[in-house]
Amino acid sequence: MASNSIGKIFKVTSFGESHGKAIGVIIDGMPAGVTIDEKFIQNQLTRRSPGKSNLSTSRIEKDSFEIISGVFEQKSTGHPITIIIANTDSKSADYDHLKNVYRPSHADYTYQIKYGIRDFLGGGRSSARITAGWVAAGALAQLGIQSLTQLKIVAFVSSVQQITIPVAYTQLDLQTIEQSDIRCPHPATALQMIEAIENAKKEKDSLGGTITCVISNVPIGLGDPVFDKLSANLAKAIFSINAVKAFEIGDGFDITTKKGSEVNDSFIAQANGTIITTLSNHSGGIQGGISNGQDIVFRVAFKPTATIGLPQQTTTNTGETLRFT
Amino acid sequence: MASNSIGKIFKVTSFGESHGKAIGVIIDGMPAGVTIDEKFIQNQLTRRSPGKSNLSTSRIEKDSFEIISGVFEQKSTGHPITIIIANTDSKSADYDHLKNVYRPSHADYTYQIKYGIRDFLGGGRSSARITAGWVAAGALAQLGIQSLTQLKIVAFVSSVQQITIPVAYTQLDLQTIEQSDIRCPHPATALQMIEAIENAKKEKDSLGGTITCVISNVPIGLGDPVFDKLSANLAKAIFSINAVKAFEIGDGFDITTKKGSEVNDSFIAQANGTIITTLSNHSGGIQGGISNGQDIVFRVAFKPTATIGLPQQTTTNTGETLRFT
Amino acid sequence: MASNSIGKIFKVTSFGESHGKAIGVIIDGMPAGVTIDEKFIQNQLTRRSPGKSNLSTSRIEKDSFEIISGVFEQKSTGHPITIIIANTDSKSADYDHLKNVYRPSHADYTYQIKYGIRDFLGGGRSSARITAGWVAAGALAQLGIQSLTQLKIVAFVSSVQQITIPVAYTQLDLQTIEQSDIRCPHPATALQMIEAIENAKKEKDSLGGTITCVISNVPIGLGDPVFDKLSANLAKAIFSINAVKAFEIGDGFDITTKKGSEVNDSFIAQANGTIITTLSNHSGGIQGGISNGQDIVFRVAFKPTATIGLPQQTTTNTGETLRFT
Amino acid sequence: MASNSIGKIFKVTSFGESHGKAIGVIIDGMPAGVTIDEKFIQNQLTRRSPGKSNLSTSRIEKDSFEIISGVFEQKSTGHPITIIIANTDSKSADYDHLKNVYRPSHADYTYQIKYGIRDFLGGGRSSARITAGWVAAGALAQLGIQSLTQLKIVAFVSSVQQITIPVAYTQLDLQTIEQSDIRCPHPATALQMIEAIENAKKEKDSLGGTITCVISNVPIGLGDPVFDKLSANLAKAIFSINAVKAFEIGDGFDITTKKGSEVNDSFIAQANGTIITTLSNHSGGIQGGISNGQDIVFRVAFKPTATIGLPQQTTTNTGETLRFT
Repeated sequence: MASNSIGKIFKVTSFGESHGKAIGVIIDGMPAGVTIDEKFIQNQLTRRSPGKSNLSTSRIEKDSFEIISGVFEQKSTGHPITIIIANTDSKSADYDHLKNVYRPSHADYTYQIKYGIRDFLGGGRSSARITAGWVAAGALAQLGIQSLTQLKIVAFVSSVQQITIPVAYTQLDLQTIEQSDIRCPHPATALQMIEAIENAKKEKDSLGGTITCVISNVPIGLGDPVFDKLSANLAKAIFSINAVKAFEIGDGFDITTKKGSEVNDSFIAQANGTIITTLSNHSGGIQGGISNGQDIVFRVAFKPTATIGLPQQTTTNTGETLRFT
Repeated sequence: MASNSIGKIFKVTSFGESHGKAIGVIIDGMPAGVTIDEKFIQNQLTRRSPGKSNLSTSRIEKDSFEIISGVFEQKSTGHPITIIIANTDSKSADYDHLKNVYRPSHADYTYQIKYGIRDFLGGGRSSARITAGWVAAGALAQLGIQSLTQLKIVAFVSSVQQITIPVAYTQLDLQTIEQSDIRCPHPATALQMIEAIENAKKEKDSLGGTITCVISNVPIGLGDPVFDKLSANLAKAIFSINAVKAFEIGDGFDITTKKGSEVNDSFIAQANGTIITTLSNHSGGIQGGISNGQDIVFRVAFKPTATIGLPQQTTTNTGETLRFT
Repeated sequence: MASNSIGKIFKVTSFGESHGKAIGVIIDGMPAGVTIDEKFIQNQLTRRSPGKSNLSTSRIEKDSFEIISGVFEQKSTGHPITIIIANTDSKSADYDHLKNVYRPSHADYTYQIKYGIRDFLGGGRSSARITAGWVAAGALAQLGIQSLTQLKIVAFVSSVQQITIPVAYTQLDLQTIEQSDIRCPHPATALQMIEAIENAKKEKDSLGGTITCVISNVPIGLGDPVFDKLSANLAKAIFSINAVKAFEIGDGFDITTKKGSEVNDSFIAQANGTIITTLSNHSGGIQGGISNGQDIVFRVAFKPTATIGLPQQTTTNTGETLRFT
Repeated sequence: MASNSIGKIFKVTSFGESHGKAIGVIIDGMPAGVTIDEKFIQNQLTRRSPGKSNLSTSRIEKDSFEIISGVFEQKSTGHPITIIIANTDSKSADYDHLKNVYRPSHADYTYQIKYGIRDFLGGGRSSARITAGWVAAGALAQLGIQSLTQLKIVAFVSSVQQITIPVAYTQLDLQTIEQSDIRCPHPATALQMIEAIENAKKEKDSLGGTITCVISNVPIGLGDPVFDKLSANLAKAIFSINAVKAFEIGDGFDITTKKGSEVNDSFIAQANGTIITTLSNHSGGIQGGISNGQDIVFRVAFKPTATIGLPQQTTTNTGETLRFT
């Protein structure tokens, strides 16, 4: 059953495997007439690509892309935009020893049982590499959003293991995110995070963490009342990313420890009643599934990368126990 | 834009407003030949309906339902099953004073701006009453699932305010959930929860909490690799419920505080290699978006009910500040 | 698999069986604020209902409807509009002798094999009665269209058996359609059609025919280039109606007998180049899948009703040949 | 709004423009484990490509393709299969004189108005070249169907202008279709068709025609009762092809000239009641929207190609009348 697309108006279709010829994405629903800034797209891809800092995996990828449809004289035409990213660092010999092994907390086992076949080279379709296509799609989405609205999206690393930014996002300078190697806009915390990651790498282990996303200048009225709540569609989109285990919006789990009187967001009128806003934002910018104009704030948990250098025990597809690294 | 349906194979379409003639649901995709046990459906509706215990709202509803299509001689026919639940306790006069008021943390404001019109009687389409239809749909889903699989779903209240069940779900007797007025299978915790709720009611305030859901005997292979991950579709479905602010699966946010070596789920073979399973279940039964046969475990945060008896400040649609109860 | 909805923006979901409690329809996607004129809806339902003239089946139905959601103070709210039409003339005893019979050219056999069960009362889900719900949905669509555009839709009977209106639609007064018992705006032809139908009824036989639909004042730009061509979606919608066997747009099959030079629609500029239109309309108002502002004209073939009074041979579900009436 | 995909289970997404870098298609929903025979796919592409005979356009394309995802060791993996066909014969200079011209019966005008921009090189997205991607998708569909069922699909040219095969398809040897340059399995008619086309080419004009498609060994039960009738989905798919103006199934328009008693398909039992079939097949293999196991037969009208060599009058986007060739 077809399952590799997301979105109704701006639909993203993902394709490709880690070590095939290429990965990529089709964007169907981009409005016509948007200037397609290829430098911006490349910049976003480079931000994602591993090997930029020494904090992530050692695989080196350039992730240069090619647009093969939907753009004419630097403008979107309203037709599907196809972006292809060639796989250049794909020495498949690397993976032969994993052919029959079910790596712990990877998708090897579930894919094998579901499909009876799997592309075992570098995780195939389950590789985090696939998200490069989504980054390209996200860059296109940003170009479209920018040309039509004032909406602004930023995200930052808010915790690594137990190391957590100790202040609310409103006290951070979100303009400094990109200046940080680890994209944490709280310099002291960033230093601790980097140290923790470097220690984990030395131990051949991996760490998890959370990111916080803040969307500002949101038009009122995005999202639908019942089954296409903005919160629900955000939750689905975020849970589509590899390794995500939790998603919370506004005060999230914390709100459950408060009383209604403490966390209800009262409305106030400003500018002689022409602007209506809320005194607080425990709701995270969404009420009844629909954006209310306040910042949309959500937090996402990423589990530690399943691939580690330490030896682990597991089994093969024929049930033989083995220890592998 | 149409947005009141969820699901592709078993599609649920919701309709109705709190104080209209009726609410209800259409289930499109029920396999033919399933025995439709009306007592079971009524039982599930009665479990949901307020007024059963004195722990929830004071509105009294019987929530009796009528099936008007898709069932012939007590069997599903494969055609849409339409369930209608009449609204019997709908004295609309109760709500006239709220006609122009934006209640804090309700959907009044977002609906008004999005649609330019709203049914202000009891929250209209945003009322939690709408979920009665989903309960009926859920009951039908359970009848279908029971007739085709061994899969079993239970959910329980795992925390109210700061009061939390102190043990893992595996140490609880999940068969006792229905014996508890508050559906908490840890009796000592249940007592504290009830006391906290009764105190909050006295204070005319409300409390939030979490529920934990455990799905067992799950067939391997449910869910899709990329954009229809089982986890992503669960997240979307759960975030469609009113008042949900967070969702986590497996170890959820906690997993971010651990190292990969601590939380990877190693595979082991049993029964001479004919069964493959995992030693631990930090993943919550889903790997690469696909069920691996282990228990699917997720936790959901519900904010305190926005409707409280304490006086609150807010504004009207014309920007007049008012204090209301 | 769910299959009882059509449309993405204005989605119609159909439910109900011929002799169940009710049939009906949900419209999801009606814009908010449209005045819901119940008299207009009833009028459209009455136009469809059999028994109005003595030209169609002898079943008598009043087809009164009830709106149970989505309308507040006579206006659409933007939420699903549910319309229920009770089945009042449903004496199920009428159909017991057909329980095991596969009526010629009916859906009895295909339903039985596909579902292993069928509601044999009056055709169940395959009854033309189900289209009453679509008529209600169509009436709502017209209310929405009227409030937003100048678009106008009419349809008329253009042939019955070999009796065909001898002139082009542009030479007919389409305002007179409703004055004709058989909705044929060419009086002389209408008389012949009625006579042919009355003769067929005497012979206990049935006739087929075609209808022609003309949509005028069409906004330019409806439809999409590739897989949601306006022509393709019209074809699908029309083929959803019971007994349809053919659909053609513009010159249809006839265009295949001409040369390109004869049937290409040349563009001309009018009003100093501010209006661009076509000299001819062989394309039927759609080019490249998209409306060009000309009249959309299509023609539909309905086979003779399968239910006839003459004795016919067929077989039962256990393979016994029988002659039945 | 996204509109470049068709299908729910086996979903085809089309992309590309006539003179861009490439065109192509993604197939999402191919079952895993199907052997992907690249020679077969190439063969189908070569059948479509112009320049093979001198009966069609003079553009020469090789239409070699590349699979860049979804296939591993010659087998489908269950993940999206992406097929790319490079555009090699795309001298864009050919088209500069058409930049501002609305060619008669082409999509130039509707695209320009809908999008405010258009890729004018060779028709861009509206070019028939785009169908090369669908041919590749169709080839993959055939590989999947072959590996799972006995179903067989053939199509042939049944008329060109007024020249029509004079016998029913059941009297033709459908195995000979590919032996005919024009794919007409009635040799005498084929000769006349070819002569008519050659004459039209000499006159710098174009001709239309019909194709007939016959699907045999169809499993009973394909299609759904109401809005996903097999006939309706076939109609939509066929109307997605450029230049299609009519579609009929079974007896099509002709059935409207008959009486019910003449065209009802009586059921008969064979092999002691173990097989149920119909005596005739006026329905074209579909009853109540669902396949009944008989041959599915449909006929499609293609208008004469809009591109002709004769001079034609039209207008530019600024309203200047011009004569062009």
